[in-house]
Amino acid sequence: MELKTLNEVEINLVTSSKINQVDFENLTFGNIFTDHMLVCDYKNGAWQMPSIVPYAPFMIDPSAKVFHYGQAIFEGMKAYKDQQDAVWLFRPDENYKRFNKSATRMAMPEVPETVFLGGLKKLLEVDREWVRKGKGNTLYIRPFMIATGHGVIAAPSQEYRFMIILSPAKSYYSGEVKVLIAEHYSRAANGGIGAAKAAGNYSAQFYPTKLANEQGFQQIIWTDDATHTKLEEAGTMNVFFRINDTLLTAPTSERILDGVTRKSVIELAKRENIDVEVRSVLVDELVEAAKNGSLKEIFGAGTAAVINPIVGFSYLGTYYELPKLENAIALEIKEKLTNIQYKLADDTFGWTVKI
Amino acid sequence: MELKTLNEVEINLVTSSKINQVDFENLTFGNIFTDHMLVCDYKNGAWQMPSIVPYAPFMIDPSAKVFHYGQAIFEGMKAYKDQQDAVWLFRPDENYKRFNKSATRMAMPEVPETVFLGGLKKLLEVDREWVRKGKGNTLYIRPFMIATGHGVIAAPSQEYRFMIILSPAKSYYSGEVKVLIAEHYSRAANGGIGAAKAAGNYSAQFYPTKLANEQGFQQIIWTDDATHTKLEEAGTMNVFFRINDTLLTAPTSERILDGVTRKSVIELAKRENIDVEVRSVLVDELVEAAKNGSLKEIFGAGTAAVINPIVGFSYLGTYYELPKLENAIALEIKEKLTNIQYKLADDTFGWTVKI
Repeated sequence: MELKTLNEVEINLVTSSKINQVDFENLTFGNIFTDHMLVCDYKNGAWQMPSIVPYAPFMIDPSAKVFHYGQAIFEGMKAYKDQQDAVWLFRPDENYKRFNKSATRMAMPEVPETVFLGGLKKLLEVDREWVRKGKGNTLYIRPFMIATGHGVIAAPSQEYRFMIILSPAKSYYSGEVKVLIAEHYSRAANGGIGAAKAAGNYSAQFYPTKLANEQGFQQIIWTDDATHTKLEEAGTMNVFFRINDTLLTAPTSERILDGVTRKSVIELAKRENIDVEVRSVLVDELVEAAKNGSLKEIFGAGTAAVINPIVGFSYLGTYYELPKLENAIALEIKEKLTNIQYKLADDTFGWTVKI
Repeated sequence: MELKTLNEVEINLVTSSKINQVDFENLTFGNIFTDHMLVCDYKNGAWQMPSIVPYAPFMIDPSAKVFHYGQAIFEGMKAYKDQQDAVWLFRPDENYKRFNKSATRMAMPEVPETVFLGGLKKLLEVDREWVRKGKGNTLYIRPFMIATGHGVIAAPSQEYRFMIILSPAKSYYSGEVKVLIAEHYSRAANGGIGAAKAAGNYSAQFYPTKLANEQGFQQIIWTDDATHTKLEEAGTMNVFFRINDTLLTAPTSERILDGVTRKSVIELAKRENIDVEVRSVLVDELVEAAKNGSLKEIFGAGTAAVINPIVGFSYLGTYYELPKLENAIALEIKEKLTNIQYKLADDTFGWTVKI
């Protein structure tokens, strides 16, 4: 599959690229941006002509609604370069569809496919040198939309800005990850915005995560806010539990993000004849499995880290360490998934899309 | 009581005021801003020198964390001018304390009192002509803080901007307000950020409110997200229910904002020997009271509208109209509260603070 490009676009290129100042071997995730960005404004009820311009700060009014009422959504995607120097995306249509679902939930206008996917293709053509060859090298893609309309009255904005910025990244390694099972704090409400990739969902987790960090845990696995008995997701990742030889993960809901890596893991595991059960997983069940030794693995699945193995979890003050396996499913799936992404294995699913 | 002013401040005044271009008799809420604003940046772990500068757009990086992770909080306050041309605030210490509580919950730094209250006093001194005499005229005050640090990684920002902007307002009249009792959508989670004045709490309500608007309801009274059986708040207002001659309102919690108008209404009602019960109010109880005629009034309490009477509510498809009373408690309390705010009645509570 190949994406259609965006023809109706104004392009204003940098006079000199900053690419030679970048140390691609020592990148901190999400800190360095490429030469250009895509900008498209929405006003008078319509999307205006998009433009590709040098990456730079922009002017915004102090009363812009994004600052006061938090109308802001985003996506996370990656571009990969294969051995023949072709640039590939992974299931970009899934990100595009989810972006517009988030937009609807946050009372924001949907972004046209030509602007989101066509604009991304054009931007990647312009900044294609920033996608580096070699497994582990990616270009992280951040499409986002903010409410730019003026006025401190709590109502949806009439004006918006859609942007895509690009950040070169190395394979994301977050060290040994120990997690805390949430006992008090929560990420999302029933009937809330937990399934949307809305900015406010992330800052809501910072304070409880800070408290967890202080206790030596890198992340939190959130539970349902009403009873704290069901395992949900980890905020920047969906979560899988391996009990004996079965992979378990919570069904998506209004409280849980419908992760692209999550659904790819499920499909890939099924192809590999691994038992996958998509159902409510109880905290009690996890603790019991940890105690009787049937809990073999826990791992997160998300765009940034792809698969993030978890070494242990804490619940009600007790820490449960997971066994160190030689044949972890997490690593097997990560290998197969990244091989598809880097075009090192046949993409029998049709997930990869050429730029 | 009188506020201390901020002495350590850089001031850069406009060359000519735009005040004569403003039609103070026809103001739309929150759309017009005064000549100046206060700006104070936080970086390297410390608040920098604040400045008062002409109200204007400012530059911000596309990767600023406020756009991606929603670290943004605000307050809503008002300034009033008395008959002797003195400018007054209403319980500003309450807004200041709540602002820093919001900051903590959103993993943002606390703002010093000298910057928040001292800076506000200085800014009001500079723009005092914008506070108009006469009951119904106010200057709406919007202190807010946003995460300005760069980088698309979900973690608290290292840099922030605190700002105060001012908007002249007429007495807020929102027309006849019919409300919908939430049956599916929710505003806040247990263990979530509902008690913080965080930007994300507001945009989360826009879509369900839009759906309510399409059915002819101006606002939603939110219920607890787990069972939808308890009445909570209205998103921009706390809510009071009068059953027979008792005022009922929900206790504050992690899901409910600790409103300054709410607590003032409670104290004022008690002084007037009105029975007030702060306790969980059930939807069933409200419906039953509406059916048997003991439900006399519902009203919202918040800074913008002060008191907002509600004419009826809908629940599970049935609309319940409230009686039209000659001696509504809502209007009596509004009159007494605004008389204190405009210094037309003795402030026996010590709520008003002179600038």
